[in-house]
Amino acid sequence: MSNRTKTYMLITLGEELLLGLTRNGHLTYIGNQLRQRGITLHSNYTISDDNQDIDQQFAFCWERSDVLITTGGLGPTVDDRTKEAIADALGESLVFDESILESMEERFRQIGKPMSDNNRKQAYRPQSAIALENPNGTAPGLWLEKSGKILIMLPGPPNELQPMFENQVVPRLEKLGLIDQGESYLQIRSIGIGESALETKLQPLFDQHEQLAVAYCAHQGQVDCRISFPDSTGREKRLHQIGEECRRLLGADFLGYGHDSLPEIVLNSLKYHNVSLALAESFTGGQIANAITDIPGASSVFNGSIVCYSDEVKINVLGVPKEIIRKNTAVSEPVAEAMALGAAKRLNSDYAISATGYAGPNRGTEETPLGTVFLGLHSAGGTEVHRYRWKIGRLGIKRRALYTALDLLRRKLVGNK
Amino acid sequence: MSNRTKTYMLITLGEELLLGLTRNGHLTYIGNQLRQRGITLHSNYTISDDNQDIDQQFAFCWERSDVLITTGGLGPTVDDRTKEAIADALGESLVFDESILESMEERFRQIGKPMSDNNRKQAYRPQSAIALENPNGTAPGLWLEKSGKILIMLPGPPNELQPMFENQVVPRLEKLGLIDQGESYLQIRSIGIGESALETKLQPLFDQHEQLAVAYCAHQGQVDCRISFPDSTGREKRLHQIGEECRRLLGADFLGYGHDSLPEIVLNSLKYHNVSLALAESFTGGQIANAITDIPGASSVFNGSIVCYSDEVKINVLGVPKEIIRKNTAVSEPVAEAMALGAAKRLNSDYAISATGYAGPNRGTEETPLGTVFLGLHSAGGTEVHRYRWKIGRLGIKRRALYTALDLLRRKLVGNK
Repeated sequence: MSNRTKTYMLITLGEELLLGLTRNGHLTYIGNQLRQRGITLHSNYTISDDNQDIDQQFAFCWERSDVLITTGGLGPTVDDRTKEAIADALGESLVFDESILESMEERFRQIGKPMSDNNRKQAYRPQSAIALENPNGTAPGLWLEKSGKILIMLPGPPNELQPMFENQVVPRLEKLGLIDQGESYLQIRSIGIGESALETKLQPLFDQHEQLAVAYCAHQGQVDCRISFPDSTGREKRLHQIGEECRRLLGADFLGYGHDSLPEIVLNSLKYHNVSLALAESFTGGQIANAITDIPGASSVFNGSIVCYSDEVKINVLGVPKEIIRKNTAVSEPVAEAMALGAAKRLNSDYAISATGYAGPNRGTEETPLGTVFLGLHSAGGTEVHRYRWKIGRLGIKRRALYTALDLLRRKLVGNK
Repeated sequence: MSNRTKTYMLITLGEELLLGLTRNGHLTYIGNQLRQRGITLHSNYTISDDNQDIDQQFAFCWERSDVLITTGGLGPTVDDRTKEAIADALGESLVFDESILESMEERFRQIGKPMSDNNRKQAYRPQSAIALENPNGTAPGLWLEKSGKILIMLPGPPNELQPMFENQVVPRLEKLGLIDQGESYLQIRSIGIGESALETKLQPLFDQHEQLAVAYCAHQGQVDCRISFPDSTGREKRLHQIGEECRRLLGADFLGYGHDSLPEIVLNSLKYHNVSLALAESFTGGQIANAITDIPGASSVFNGSIVCYSDEVKINVLGVPKEIIRKNTAVSEPVAEAMALGAAKRLNSDYAISATGYAGPNRGTEETPLGTVFLGLHSAGGTEVHRYRWKIGRLGIKRRALYTALDLLRRKLVGNK
């Protein structure tokens, strides 16, 4: 329980985040890591690293947090001077650490590159800090305990930050009893039902349970609903019972418990039924295959995708009859059907999904205007084609097709039981 | 110049961001939109929407900003109560707006769904605010001018927020003279050279120019370097001259000026040389094709990709000789070579890239352990294969292969001139 009352804050440094040049992946990663260990990150502050805001923001957060994490600003270039600013704010002086220098020299020897002079400044640390080793880069992280609070400074590159967090920060926080295992809420994922329709459906059930906290979160055609009791001890069973009632109310719109993504759920379902999948992707351009192959172990059920960005490839590789394209254009129901069938045959698979559509800049025709999408689904029972129209821009259309196609397959597999 | 002194702040609301369940895409989008119009977003605050932090954070930002943007918290569910908190903080009362209700009712008629009672609360607005229409959702945005400051409240879903920002917020800010066109700095993108090596190479040149501001930003094997003068008037030409010197110093590591991504640069280069591209993707699983087809107009040079997640597909669709796989395993130089050749032939293309490797969980063999990657590049001059080993996890390996493969092709095309 005591962890609940500890305040974790995150400062992410970098003008590139504010300029929209880089996504703030550190927030997603660290928020997720803490959540898995029972902590809700209190807040995240993204500021530039080239002005006095570091001092101000750091002082603000240091006063209000128990654990303060910073990312970025430890690099070797002239504009990375976080350490100086933070040492000032803490009343610490920077000391040159020979052992940091040695690790860095060792690292440069390993990768066979000369060390620049400007790397030397990475060997300075605030006097009370200890260095966190960085096997994937030159800048060490820093860990500082002062006035009953903890400051954790992490390097900016994700491939340096992430192993450092999991291998060095998490064990230290565990030792101090500042994080725990497991989660204390239940998440119910739904798909194909809007946020307010979901609330209308579930809220009367939730209202029967005193003290039950409920939060909704909509994303990509899905709505997640998290439920929890303020004191989780011994309530897991009741949460699960409530979850099961939600599942019954939602029917096929129930996606799953927890944090499994739609691609994970579809892959697990394919494995459960011991069937294989192939794709024929025109305008989705490999996005569906990419989402599936992000999941470890996909190869046991996923055979591949024919990304057919020209009519020629549809005809020669997928075996779509030239005549069908000539008569109907490539964005049509008959072509989606032939693509799905072709993928199933050529890739020798039980199920196949096809996608053809106008995502732009091609504005389509009068009958099939920009935003028109055909998704085909081939199974032992035959091939069905669904038509959609979305006015959400090229990338929006690609992305919605990905989730819609996977959900079509999921619903087919659920009905298949 | 006066815009430069205006402070823009962004508050992104939502526990799902702090829990790492959703990426903070609003920061990337809004930061990018403002940057393109000469504004650097000062800071971004991500806080939860279910506690008193809204009041505190809002008051903090309202005091320090000229333009304050908030996202999220306008939805119909019980946990969305941003408007109440902000109206309180501004000393405004919430009024029920019949015309908002009418637009919402019209919207529900259009999509043919009944309006829930809980949608009604979306029709309330602070008394001095005007509604920003939301053709893609139910919650209107809000625009409020008070005490010489501007508050802009936007809905959370990206497909609602983005058109609202571009069609309604930007024109209003332009009218008030708060944003301008074009950028006033020069960005130089490099690839294949580390951050400190880049600084060592370029900094002596930069040091010759008084008042020149320099910022480095590393991401995905690339390092961007932004240079600017404090007063941009009439300095564009000098910035460009400095850029040209950087280009000469960097040679083939010079990627381009501005914000074009590596996939865009490669596509433009293919178009410039009027040549076509095909892919054969094993462990990258369609990621390279997906990145290419994210770019509008890709179809003029990109024919497609064979995502071959099984040996069978490599053999049957790409025509890789069975014997080569049996003798060398699927992760080998000869197979990468045969895949690239097969893709070029089957998809009738001038260039072809192939990718085969062990990204995990398959740990590979003693000779080709986990993390080993072969990238093939076929061109008129023949087929070359490059071998790598990366210890950066499944998704890291997929992503690095994407950028490495595109850069191999880019360098080949540059040499082709």
